[in-house]
Amino acid sequence: MRNSRRGAVDPFIVMDVMEAARQAEAEGRHIIHMEVGQPGTAAPEGARRALAQAMETDALGYTVALGIPELRARIARLYGDWYNVDLNPARVIVTPGSSGAFLLAFTALFDAGDRVAIGAPGYPSYRQILKALSLTPLDIQTANENRLQPVPGDLSELDFEGLMVASPANPTGTMLDKRAMEALIDLCAEKQAAFISDEIYHGIEYEAKAVTALEITEEAYVINSFSKYFSMTGWRAGWMVVPEDHVRQVERLAQNMFICAPHASQVAALAAMDCDDELEANMAVYRENRALMIDGLPKAGFTRFAPPDGAFYFYVDVSAFTQDSRAFAREILQEAGVAVTPGLDFDPIRGHQTLRFSYARSSADIAEGLTRLQRFMAARGFV
Amino acid sequence: MRNSRRGAVDPFIVMDVMEAARQAEAEGRHIIHMEVGQPGTAAPEGARRALAQAMETDALGYTVALGIPELRARIARLYGDWYNVDLNPARVIVTPGSSGAFLLAFTALFDAGDRVAIGAPGYPSYRQILKALSLTPLDIQTANENRLQPVPGDLSELDFEGLMVASPANPTGTMLDKRAMEALIDLCAEKQAAFISDEIYHGIEYEAKAVTALEITEEAYVINSFSKYFSMTGWRAGWMVVPEDHVRQVERLAQNMFICAPHASQVAALAAMDCDDELEANMAVYRENRALMIDGLPKAGFTRFAPPDGAFYFYVDVSAFTQDSRAFAREILQEAGVAVTPGLDFDPIRGHQTLRFSYARSSADIAEGLTRLQRFMAARGFV
Repeated sequence: MRNSRRGAVDPFIVMDVMEAARQAEAEGRHIIHMEVGQPGTAAPEGARRALAQAMETDALGYTVALGIPELRARIARLYGDWYNVDLNPARVIVTPGSSGAFLLAFTALFDAGDRVAIGAPGYPSYRQILKALSLTPLDIQTANENRLQPVPGDLSELDFEGLMVASPANPTGTMLDKRAMEALIDLCAEKQAAFISDEIYHGIEYEAKAVTALEITEEAYVINSFSKYFSMTGWRAGWMVVPEDHVRQVERLAQNMFICAPHASQVAALAAMDCDDELEANMAVYRENRALMIDGLPKAGFTRFAPPDGAFYFYVDVSAFTQDSRAFAREILQEAGVAVTPGLDFDPIRGHQTLRFSYARSSADIAEGLTRLQRFMAARGFV
Repeated sequence: MRNSRRGAVDPFIVMDVMEAARQAEAEGRHIIHMEVGQPGTAAPEGARRALAQAMETDALGYTVALGIPELRARIARLYGDWYNVDLNPARVIVTPGSSGAFLLAFTALFDAGDRVAIGAPGYPSYRQILKALSLTPLDIQTANENRLQPVPGDLSELDFEGLMVASPANPTGTMLDKRAMEALIDLCAEKQAAFISDEIYHGIEYEAKAVTALEITEEAYVINSFSKYFSMTGWRAGWMVVPEDHVRQVERLAQNMFICAPHASQVAALAAMDCDDELEANMAVYRENRALMIDGLPKAGFTRFAPPDGAFYFYVDVSAFTQDSRAFAREILQEAGVAVTPGLDFDPIRGHQTLRFSYARSSADIAEGLTRLQRFMAARGFV
């Protein structure tokens, strides 16, 4: 039977790591999970309670395509609380996760063959979704001195119809400050390219508050999610803010492509937004884990990284130890019992020299993982 | 800010009907909803109970992209129970509703510009999703004598890369029997076109069991959903069965485009599959409603329809009363207080002469709706 060319997307290497970790556990080994891209915590208790109640009283059929009005209004209020931005709820579109938002944004903005610039290293699905939609991802090799974020100098000579940035970024955790984001937005305006800001790690920040593109312009697509700060990955609920004159087109696309985001998840998400105590308790764990990592990684010989501004990853240059991050990750899993992600998922060109360490799990797990890494690296003579 | 051409999809007219009905209700009027495409019932109690329990014990993070293994196995078993087909669970892919399955199927099978034949009248989102993915929908004007299903004679002179059929169909409720489906599958094999079978109304059948394409061939994409028979529209859970050598490609697409179907919905869906008593009670209501409609529609002058084989719609030729189904539906809503769907959503060419009446709600509602329709049509001098 026939197959498409655009459907031949690359595999996620991290999936192989996760499968190898699962096999090791099935054989009775104890594995520390530093490969995962999600919190170990459940949705806040208030969110689960709200859904349990709604299941007693509501049929939970389709919602309108743009999402439950109360949820859209509550999301708009968040922009006041977090950024002092006055946002019209009519511009908020509830989506089936940020994944759904990417699909909506890319189809609403771009036609087949259009070029969308994305920073490398970056979230691998950007590239794969673009390919699956017959768009052309344009990998921008970002520089260490720019903390692996794109700058106008990387882009000014290129032709493209869109630019997608992430701040805080996966896998680096680095952020664009207001001036840096403004420069990129200005460049896009000059080139008549769409500016898309992936802000799904907002709320998980350490030194400074993350900047939303909406502080700078209304002419952007802003994508966020309940997965990370609100600890609701498996619920597939996210949102997107678009310019007012784009709402109607995105609504029609959403009606046809998704009908609506999961109703149950929308109910839970609305309640999650008022679970500050529990969410801040999660943040306290991330903060402690980050401190453990800043202290512990260098003791294992991993010194070449920038402490993350946000999210829950360290992206480490391991070129002193290997030119094959995939094999190195496999060794670390087998010998140290720690699952980590090779950089190749995020940067096909330079990722053979990098690893991503996630610290989204419990502090006890992170401490144990660091101890194991230190032992492994010492045994290899690297420290 | 820029916009894509492919994102400029048509609006759903039914959405305007629903909005008008909502406004009428806000003004204090009582409206009977014969426009809706979903059951009025909630997910089965066993499904809700299973989720309530899982929320206490499980973090409900991401599942693997193909879906919870127990759910895939349970779906495979359904093909044994319902059709006596022995299905390898490895071929089952859990999706975010059938909507997610359409997106996966179309990107896995077709490249930009490819032509996909669909029957008119048909589910409007097929056409719109195809457009949004830079594919070319090829509307097949089906014939009354074929009960508005495509037959090889409609297609043999055409060039296309795929054919999508629905049985039972929306809006007509008609089915393809085994011989009719086999003829279409054979034609697709000759033309090296992909065959996609939308089977989301399976289980809601009245005279004969619906036929799955898997009874005929393994070389097809089969799409189904928990929305209709299992009464879980808002949960966005569905599935797709693909040829064995397509699983890996679809898995990679699913990893990138969706990560996974909603975890909570998967838990609920698995339990729903064992709620036979409640689901059969829903079926008893549909059966009673269908009998009410067969009796009541002609009394209102609506005689030109085929009783549906499945699903919960009557698709009625109203050319004796109007050439503008949209205006006619508006009048029926305003004067009779019954919301119905103009055929234009399903058939842009001939739909100005048709209406779709849904009987998915309670029998009391359907009886009241029919009484109102009879009164309205009598007042207009049509009966």
